[in-house]
Amino acid sequence: MGRTYINELKNNINKTVRIDGWVDVRRDHGKLVFIDLRDTTGVVQTVIRPDSGDAYEIGKTLRNEWVVSVEGIVQKRPEKMVNKESETGDIEFIISSVNVLSQADELPFDRDEKLNLDTYLDNLPLTLRTKRAQAIFKVQTTILQAFRSFLVEKGFIEFQSPKLIGEDAEGGASVFEVDYFDHTAHLAQSPQFYKQIMVGVYEKVFTTGNVYRAEKHSTSRHLNEYTSLDMEMGFIKDHRDIMNISGELMTHITITVEKTCTKELALFNTTPIKIPMPIPHLTLRDAQEIIKKNYGEDCSDEPDLSPQHERWLSEYALKEHKSDFLFVTHFPIEKTAMYAYEDEDNLGYSRYFDLLFRGIEIQSGGQRQHNYDKLVKAMERKKLDPKKFSFYLQAFKYGMPPHGGFGMGLERLTAKFLGLENVKEATLFPREINRIDTLLSQ
Amino acid sequence: MGRTYINELKNNINKTVRIDGWVDVRRDHGKLVFIDLRDTTGVVQTVIRPDSGDAYEIGKTLRNEWVVSVEGIVQKRPEKMVNKESETGDIEFIISSVNVLSQADELPFDRDEKLNLDTYLDNLPLTLRTKRAQAIFKVQTTILQAFRSFLVEKGFIEFQSPKLIGEDAEGGASVFEVDYFDHTAHLAQSPQFYKQIMVGVYEKVFTTGNVYRAEKHSTSRHLNEYTSLDMEMGFIKDHRDIMNISGELMTHITITVEKTCTKELALFNTTPIKIPMPIPHLTLRDAQEIIKKNYGEDCSDEPDLSPQHERWLSEYALKEHKSDFLFVTHFPIEKTAMYAYEDEDNLGYSRYFDLLFRGIEIQSGGQRQHNYDKLVKAMERKKLDPKKFSFYLQAFKYGMPPHGGFGMGLERLTAKFLGLENVKEATLFPREINRIDTLLSQ
Repeated sequence: MGRTYINELKNNINKTVRIDGWVDVRRDHGKLVFIDLRDTTGVVQTVIRPDSGDAYEIGKTLRNEWVVSVEGIVQKRPEKMVNKESETGDIEFIISSVNVLSQADELPFDRDEKLNLDTYLDNLPLTLRTKRAQAIFKVQTTILQAFRSFLVEKGFIEFQSPKLIGEDAEGGASVFEVDYFDHTAHLAQSPQFYKQIMVGVYEKVFTTGNVYRAEKHSTSRHLNEYTSLDMEMGFIKDHRDIMNISGELMTHITITVEKTCTKELALFNTTPIKIPMPIPHLTLRDAQEIIKKNYGEDCSDEPDLSPQHERWLSEYALKEHKSDFLFVTHFPIEKTAMYAYEDEDNLGYSRYFDLLFRGIEIQSGGQRQHNYDKLVKAMERKKLDPKKFSFYLQAFKYGMPPHGGFGMGLERLTAKFLGLENVKEATLFPREINRIDTLLSQ
Repeated sequence: MGRTYINELKNNINKTVRIDGWVDVRRDHGKLVFIDLRDTTGVVQTVIRPDSGDAYEIGKTLRNEWVVSVEGIVQKRPEKMVNKESETGDIEFIISSVNVLSQADELPFDRDEKLNLDTYLDNLPLTLRTKRAQAIFKVQTTILQAFRSFLVEKGFIEFQSPKLIGEDAEGGASVFEVDYFDHTAHLAQSPQFYKQIMVGVYEKVFTTGNVYRAEKHSTSRHLNEYTSLDMEMGFIKDHRDIMNISGELMTHITITVEKTCTKELALFNTTPIKIPMPIPHLTLRDAQEIIKKNYGEDCSDEPDLSPQHERWLSEYALKEHKSDFLFVTHFPIEKTAMYAYEDEDNLGYSRYFDLLFRGIEIQSGGQRQHNYDKLVKAMERKKLDPKKFSFYLQAFKYGMPPHGGFGMGLERLTAKFLGLENVKEATLFPREINRIDTLLSQ
């Protein structure tokens, strides 16, 4: 007998079918054994009656997370027995035979209880099976696929960016080193150089993949390995073209998640996302004025926003613009990456932006310098040796259009969509200074 | 004036529009300047006439790969001037003004000439702009997207697999080491452990991403960093369920590429791909018998196929089964990965397969061991310490269904689709023992 998925049972009333899955919960009521059976499509309540012979004997031995293949008959429940909380609450599955495919140890804790983060992380192969975790990563994959489908629709070409690199785009100390035969290589902090090179090839490109930060601090917002969603496009006028497409993209992602993940979102205390078009924007200096005026802190000399500033500005955007999103533009050029474009109309400031979403920066981008000579000069000003970037510089030697793009962390975005406190909850297998799956000190 | 893409020009006959792009080629005929202009959608022939004032003066200075924004009028060509080889061969663009966005150095070689591989790799930011390279990576992105869309359609959930890992699934010497704070981490050779763990969560999963092999040999079929397309699914009967879905997937990919990349495929000497359903299959021992009988080499003691054997078997499959694909199954269990499932009906042999495609193995997969105790015993037989795999083993401790899957290298598949001799041609930025973009010995 072929397998029937649980979400197809309602089309098989009064038929005998086979379903496969995990024992989600076993409960005994008097002589009846109730098994909530889980497969990839849902959960259904099954019953084993004492008069079902072998099935009953086996049924009594089943424990949570055992894997079984069962045959039985699908029945409609009487009206007063319908469980409206469950998608399969109007049916019941009467088991006639049980085949145990795999047993399981007794669980070390009640699977659905709220665990502390370390216990959760120590037991991911088990804890990821909870409804809550399944929902988080369902939302995550939806965001990822919405990102891609939006850009493909707009004519962007996807490419694979290398992660094993020579010199890093961002420089700095937070780069992992790899023993590369007789040399030292690095793990990429971003696909920055490659996406710019690819603008020379296809004009409009995107890439998704793992990136690395060897940051020692372990906070609720940092990860040592995360998934970066990156786009880059040529023939822009300035950073505002990038901000416009970013706004359209974030709207598309929001609508897609809200439409396809209704069930998953319902598990979290989320409110509908407010995203006006266009998304409001402020320069860094104007944002700092607002902070001074509304919150009393004078940060007008600072080259960037602190986490507290980001929270205040998001609060401001929600109140003043009814928006969960806010662009902050024009960071001091000397504090921006060497490939940033200096705004001719605001000398000393870059055509760069951060996109804040519900209290945190989730996207960073802007216009890049496309002129070879100016790019080399910018490297020299940052005390970088242009010779080390000769490969990258070729793109600019042979004709690059004005261009720009942005990068966005998938895990952080997922966390903010669902209101999760810690980005590690939105990371399948988070890497920390003292943990790669298991604790490193063990 | 807004930008018009080159593939939209035919809808703008006799209109004045702006197009942006690269100078693909400049030619002078008498006093006329002809510019083939290239954007992401195609190439169009433009003309600058001597009576066009500034445009003519600027036009004469233009060189290959300069980036320009031009305005002009779209005209239909007289019938006898139509170039049927070009998609825009029935129109011509008469330039009235030229704005140079970016200049370019003189090219170090004629861009479309056949280069030796080192020169090609030294100059990728330029050489990737050729029609040939653009076509290769257009086909690659099409394969990738067809892989995903097929599996999403079948209810598979995509996930992000970590690449920075503790212990590797495959073991062996060919693993890159990473300085991970005060510890040593590794770069994943495959997402194997994680995709199996995720079967416990979602039952049917897939992931795509970079994987690493620290192999010192530099051949036409090996890469140190490549893109692995991986799927894994639960509740299978045996490896044949995986081979069936693999056959459907390869058919879907073939049809999609042939349908959407007609223009790109035409640049290569490819013949239509022959993929019968089901794909023919042989056990390793039967395959070795065929090699002995047809090619005179006795390899019946060997645990695996050599590259020459793969070529012979593909030749055989094409001749006997009119198939470019061939499954070879049942490798000796002692030479298969520790997580392989031993076939109860063929003791000593695994329920594993390789999929050969036009002379090379492009996919490897099969059924995995899902029983905790047997998996631990298999580790011990391979002299592996189960303690080091405690995280992975949790999935099996808490109930895993019979499952299996496969992995496939995107670059190698792309190369075979297009008949490229060297897999590096199908890799955007290939990493070799002595090269990460630039030569490491420099």
